[in-house]
Parts: sequence; structure tokens; C-alpha cells
Amino acid sequence: MSELSVDHLLGIKYLNKQDINLIFETADHFKEVINRPIKKVPSLRDITIANLFFENSTRTRLSFELAEKRLSADVVNFSAASSSVKKGETLIDTVNNILSMKVDMVVMRHPNPGAGVFLSKHINASIVNAGDGAHEHPTQALLDSYSIRERLGEVAGKKVVIVGDILHSRVALSNIFALKLQGAEVKVCGPKTLLPRYIEKLGVQVETNLKKALEWCDIANMLRVQNERMEISYFPSTREYTQQYGVNKKLLESLNKEIVIMHPGPINRGVEITSDVADSNQAIILDQVQNGVAVRMAVIYLLASKIKR
Amino acid sequence: MSELSVDHLLGIKYLNKQDINLIFETADHFKEVINRPIKKVPSLRDITIANLFFENSTRTRLSFELAEKRLSADVVNFSAASSSVKKGETLIDTVNNILSMKVDMVVMRHPNPGAGVFLSKHINASIVNAGDGAHEHPTQALLDSYSIRERLGEVAGKKVVIVGDILHSRVALSNIFALKLQGAEVKVCGPKTLLPRYIEKLGVQVETNLKKALEWCDIANMLRVQNERMEISYFPSTREYTQQYGVNKKLLESLNKEIVIMHPGPINRGVEITSDVADSNQAIILDQVQNGVAVRMAVIYLLASKIKR
Amino acid sequence: MSELSVDHLLGIKYLNKQDINLIFETADHFKEVINRPIKKVPSLRDITIANLFFENSTRTRLSFELAEKRLSADVVNFSAASSSVKKGETLIDTVNNILSMKVDMVVMRHPNPGAGVFLSKHINASIVNAGDGAHEHPTQALLDSYSIRERLGEVAGKKVVIVGDILHSRVALSNIFALKLQGAEVKVCGPKTLLPRYIEKLGVQVETNLKKALEWCDIANMLRVQNERMEISYFPSTREYTQQYGVNKKLLESLNKEIVIMHPGPINRGVEITSDVADSNQAIILDQVQNGVAVRMAVIYLLASKIKR
Repeated sequence: MSELSVDHLLGIKYLNKQDINLIFETADHFKEVINRPIKKVPSLRDITIANLFFENSTRTRLSFELAEKRLSADVVNFSAASSSVKKGETLIDTVNNILSMKVDMVVMRHPNPGAGVFLSKHINASIVNAGDGAHEHPTQALLDSYSIRERLGEVAGKKVVIVGDILHSRVALSNIFALKLQGAEVKVCGPKTLLPRYIEKLGVQVETNLKKALEWCDIANMLRVQNERMEISYFPSTREYTQQYGVNKKLLESLNKEIVIMHPGPINRGVEITSDVADSNQAIILDQVQNGVAVRMAVIYLLASKIKR
Repeated sequence: MSELSVDHLLGIKYLNKQDINLIFETADHFKEVINRPIKKVPSLRDITIANLFFENSTRTRLSFELAEKRLSADVVNFSAASSSVKKGETLIDTVNNILSMKVDMVVMRHPNPGAGVFLSKHINASIVNAGDGAHEHPTQALLDSYSIRERLGEVAGKKVVIVGDILHSRVALSNIFALKLQGAEVKVCGPKTLLPRYIEKLGVQVETNLKKALEWCDIANMLRVQNERMEISYFPSTREYTQQYGVNKKLLESLNKEIVIMHPGPINRGVEITSDVADSNQAIILDQVQNGVAVRMAVIYLLASKIKR
Repeated sequence: MSELSVDHLLGIKYLNKQDINLIFETADHFKEVINRPIKKVPSLRDITIANLFFENSTRTRLSFELAEKRLSADVVNFSAASSSVKKGETLIDTVNNILSMKVDMVVMRHPNPGAGVFLSKHINASIVNAGDGAHEHPTQALLDSYSIRERLGEVAGKKVVIVGDILHSRVALSNIFALKLQGAEVKVCGPKTLLPRYIEKLGVQVETNLKKALEWCDIANMLRVQNERMEISYFPSTREYTQQYGVNKKLLESLNKEIVIMHPGPINRGVEITSDVADSNQAIILDQVQNGVAVRMAVIYLLASKIKR
């Protein structure tokens, strides 16, 4: 019986290639489950999972919650808005309190990079990082790679360009780690002010010209423009951004091949991609969402099987 | 085996008389269920329902959630306050994302009239309109008629007056459609500024004098004064409203018969009706609330049985 | 078969000693349950519980919700922020509406002292007070005494000092009632401005000097400094408070014995107690949290067994 090399999913950088293969094979099973009339399995009836969201995130929270419920886990939700966090309690106290109530696993989104890693050193429960600041968002990267594998057969050898605000994106960083680990080639494309200086040290090439980037790639992963995450001054106007880094049907048709379009959502239609692109067969955006539930079921299932009880 | 003529419950205006009868007969069964010690049935164990509330509504949301849980459906809740909607995502994208997670049915409250109809044309899931702006609130009208049928034996031939702010009321509009369809006579009563111009085209008579309206009717449905939904200038002061359109015990006793008092809640005690009226045996307000769960169970059960899988 | 002398848990002052013993013996069983791999029992599969929180409280709400789910009850949550309460509905109407939906038990937190007592006179459901203003917080006192009993064998004869803002604390008042009922000796310690005038009428001694209080006691229950609950003028600065009423390791080591440290949470580390105290073996703070789930399961289980159906 295979098992993960880790007790937590804190970031892709802590995984090895076998971990990713195991997650994907397990997700294949769960994807089949959620497409059956009865979308549930009784696997985790004895597990309690707390979803701790210190930042709002409807779709990620919903995806985790559905994954947990379809594994028959007991689920409690906790959001910062109504929490003791406002009363000045430390993160460790908050989570230790929740764990004292006999919670087996914590799915956490937190604005601080490394919040999950920090917690995992102080706390006796399995932790899944659902996004920590601009650091990692490992389940997003896993579902992205899983969706590439589903559409194109495998990830190894594929050419992926990640377009947009790389500097502030945990989705970009986790994707880079995941894609490199599986043997894909990765380029990033975006305004220079939104590319981190260390990017080439990650084995990633920079291409500031979108057309050239698209001509090179098999897959373009179009990041969301996150105005809320940027210091205004670094950033071109939305109109300028769309002109230089937005993808529309005409641009795609000017290429000499059909590339796959991904987007982590929520889409700003008309900004990163136009509606005709988002709704075309080249886009696998809704597949990503569906695969998200299956991949999260796999991650939770595999981590739960490592809990010592 | 009977089934509904529709795949969604978007409004009463899309139902026929047989649909309403089928819903009521099914609700009779579920009302019996929720009054048993074990208030649940396993009918929808394989169904996932998302409650999408783009407007706050504790009681309607709670009623739907209880209905869903007593059918053993898996339930996820989504409220606009913590949603991607704030990030500018379109309604179709939001709902398509949720559906990609393999949700079978969407119960939606939305401030825009027609939001449910719009969605139903773009989306592959069963939709229940839980209130769309000032347009329709079909489950409220169904539970109101069900409660009349329960108290008075049948709806056909009954005289119903709807009192209050007809102009801004989805409850009024859905009730008018439902009552007329079942052969009741309907009058509306309220300040002229709060009666829509098209009202008589719906086969409804206007009676601005409350005493006369009550003398005519078998049932008075007292709408809630919704200050939050009105342009201030059109509206009399609350004190004036109560003087002209509020119901108190003395007024009821001046009639030559005992009429039935309904209210969709929440009550402004002392405004639309006094406490002695609200808490009297003439009022069926809490029956309406209880019947709401049974009627919603019936609607969800009947729609779920039409889902192709 | 033993049963509680009450139909509601409105406050410790309505319980007798046998009630507390019964709750603790039942909690012993449930504590064993929640430490098993399968942390659930099917006892309350036919019960629906509504958690009505008119004040925010993550940890208490979560503890109740876990207790309810581990008894297999159906749970619906209601928080004031998104409720009809904003629309001016009375408390009785709000709760009567929820009960009409066939809810068997209400767990309620409310800012007004006596809200639970008031409700219990008007409403046909079992009520658990989860905190009513500065009045009572009975499950907190029960879990506190349960934790003392667990650590020191019994509560009778033990010396307990409650330190801090007694005036505004429902935790203090419920603890005083519970401890006295079980035969413990109780002192309170804090700034004079934060001690209620009636305190000695409760059979409780006042000791304004913390060192003397600690030298006397077996257990110190360190209340949370609740800035949000105080009129500013009565209160010393946080720095002054910590100097006079904060507990640190050095102070504890200056005593001629090892006392037990309790805290209802969330802790202001460095204010009421320092981190080295909070995280030491003298502190049973996380035991309190874990016991909270078991004690709440016991209370709910015992009250549910008294519901006439």
C-alpha cells in the first residue's frame, strides 16, 4: 500500500513525484465517484475536519467542504470574521483550542506566508494549506496539473506558460513547483513589475511578450488580476493590462496550433480572457473546478490514512 | 406516477393547477413526516443542494435548509457577503463553478427580478427561486395556499385580501398568481402609492378601505411593512400606515364573521397587526412557518425526481 | 434511571447537586466516546437543534456544534448578523418561528441577562443558555468544575479563587454557583471597581491581593480581560492590571505549593497569564476545552431525554 511521504500538505515544495502520482491515481477514483448518482463514500466517517478560513474564499472553501462531505467526514467551519481572532488570540491558541475539541484535520487559509508550516510544528493534527498569503496554494496546483494530465494525457514534457501577476500569486508559485517536479517546461509572462526577481532561480524562463509565449506553449494558465493584492503603483491600468496580457479569440486564432486555456477563477471576463475564450472548448476552466473536488478528496483521504490513532 | 410540468420552480406563473395539487399532496405526506418523532426520510441521500443567498434571509434559508436535511440531501450554503461576487464575478460564472462541483440543485435568493429565469437558461441544474427582487417568491405563495387549504378545506372559491405594500412585494405577486390559479377571488388593499398600476390586469380588484376589504374576505394576508424596500417619499409614515391599514382586535371584532389572518413574517408587532391578533386563534402565522418546511420538502423532492442522471 | 430536575439549562442556580453529578457521570461516558477512533454515537438522530447566537462566539458555538454532531443530531446555525433580528422582530417571534419548523432544542447566546429564562416561559422547546449577558454561562461552569474534578479528584472542599473582572463576568457568576453547590470554598480577586457589591452575599470572600489569594487557593481561574465589556473609566490600564492581577511563572514559583491554573479562553497572553504559565503542566486550559465538548454532549443528551414527544 502506497502512502504520502508527508503528514501535511503545506506546499508542493514538500512533495515528491511519487506523492503527486499517488494523489492523481487516488483522485481518478474519486472523480469516478462524484460522477456517479451516489456521489459519496463512507471512508472518513470517523474523522472530524475543521475548515479555518482567515481570509474569505467561497469557491475554495466550498470545494473543500464538498470533498469532505463526500468522504463522509464531520465538518465544522470557522471564518475569521466571527472568530476569537478579533479578540487578539494567537493563531496557535485558536487552533489548539479547536484541536482540543478532537478535530483530526485542519484545512487552513491564512493571509500570512508560512502560517501552515508554523502551525504544523506546534500542533498535533494534519494540516492542509488552502492558501497562505502569496506563498503556496498546493491543492490548486495539483488540480491544475491533474486537469492538464486529463486533457493532454500527461504533464511531463508539456510547455506551460503562466500569465499575469506572478509576484503576488500563490497559484503561480505552487504551479511552478508542481510542473517542474513532473517534468514540464515552464515560462512566466507578465509585466516586469509583477515578476519576482528570483523567478529564474526556479528554473523558469521569462517571456514578456504574450504572443511569443503563446506560440511556444501547449497550455496557458491565465492568472486572475487581483487588484486587492497589489500595490497600485506597480501595476499598469486594467486597460493596459488587457491590451498586453489579455487573451482573446483573435489572438488564439493567430497561433498555428490550438493551446489549452486554464484559469484558477474567479474570471474577470474581458480582462484576463474574453468570454468567447472562457466559454470555448479550448478552455478547461470548469474541468479544473470539478477536478478540484476530486483532488481534494484524494489529498484528504491520503492524509487521513496517516493519522495515528 | 405524477410529476411536475416544470424542471425548475422559478415562479408560480410557470405552474399549472395540477402542479400545485401534486405539491400539496406531497407536502401532506412530508407534514406527517416532520411531526413524527423521527423527522427525516432518506429520499435524497444522493443529492447535493447549494443554497445561494445573495440577500440575507434567515427564516427562508433556515426553512429550506431544514427541508433539505430532512430529505437527507447534502447541503452547502453560500452567502453573498463572503463570496466571489464581491470580486466582480458574473452570476453565471459563480453558479457554473458551483455546479462543476457536482451540485444537483440550486436554491437561490437574488435581488434582481428574473435572476432565476436567467440562470435556468444557462445552467444545467434544477433551480428553486427563493425570492428574486420584487418579482416572485413561489414557495411562500405555495405555503400560504397550503395553509389556507389546511384551515378552510380548500382554496377554490375563497376570498382573499392581501393588505399592504403590493408594489414592492414578491409575496403579493406570487400569491396572486397562486390564488387565481386555484380559483380564489383576490383583492388587494393598501395605500394607492403602494399598489402597482397593472394590478387589475391580473384579475385582482383594488379596495383602498381596509374595513370594507375585511368585511368582504375570508382571509386577510397582512404583508410586512418593508421600510428597506421603499422609496421613502411614496410611503405614509408608519403611524399613518397603522391607522389606516393595521389590523387590531377591535377591528376584527367589529366584523360580522371570523376571518383568517396570515402574515409572511417577520411581524412588525403593532404596525401591520397588533400582538393580540398575531397570537390569536384567528392567526395561522406559525402554521405557515411549519407548512413552509413541508411544502419546500415537497418542491425539492418533486424537482429532484426529474433530474436526469 | 436518573434524570435532570430541570427541562432547560438556564443557569447553574436552577440546578441541584444531583443534577451536576448526573451531568458529570454522563460526561465521563462521552469523554471516553470522543477519545475513541469513532467519536460519534447515534443517540440523537431524531433531534433537531438550533444554535442561535445573538453574539459572536466562535469557540462556544464550535464546541456546541461538535457536541451536537457527535450525538448525531441535525444542526442548524443562526447568527444575529444575518438575521431577522435586524428587521426588528421580537425574540419570541424569532424563536417561535424557528420552533415552528420543528426544532427540538435551542442553544442560545444572547446579550441580555435573563433572555433564556424569558424564552423558556413562552416557548415549547428545551433551552440551553450559552451565555446571557453578564448573567450566567452554565456550561462553562460545568466544564470548569468537571475539569477540577478530573485533575484533583473532586470539587468538594477545594479552594478556588476567581481572578479578574468579576463584575462583568457570566463565567464568574456561574462558577460561583457551581462551586458553592458542590462544597468548594470560593474567593474572588480583582480590582475593587470590577467586583460586584453583592458578591459577599453569595458566600464568597473578597481578596484584593493576588499573592495572598494564590497562597490560599488550590485552583486559580484566571478570567479573560474583556475590554469590549467594560466602561473604560472603571478599569485600570492593561499594564496596571497585569502588574497587579497577572500571573507569571515567578509568582507561581514563589508559592509554597503547586496550584492549578484555569482560563476560559481566549487567552490574552502576557495579560492575565504569561505564556510559560499558559503552556505549563499546572495549566489545564486545553483540558477545559476538550471537556467542554463532553460536558455539552451530556447536557444535551440529558435534556433531550426529557423532551415529551
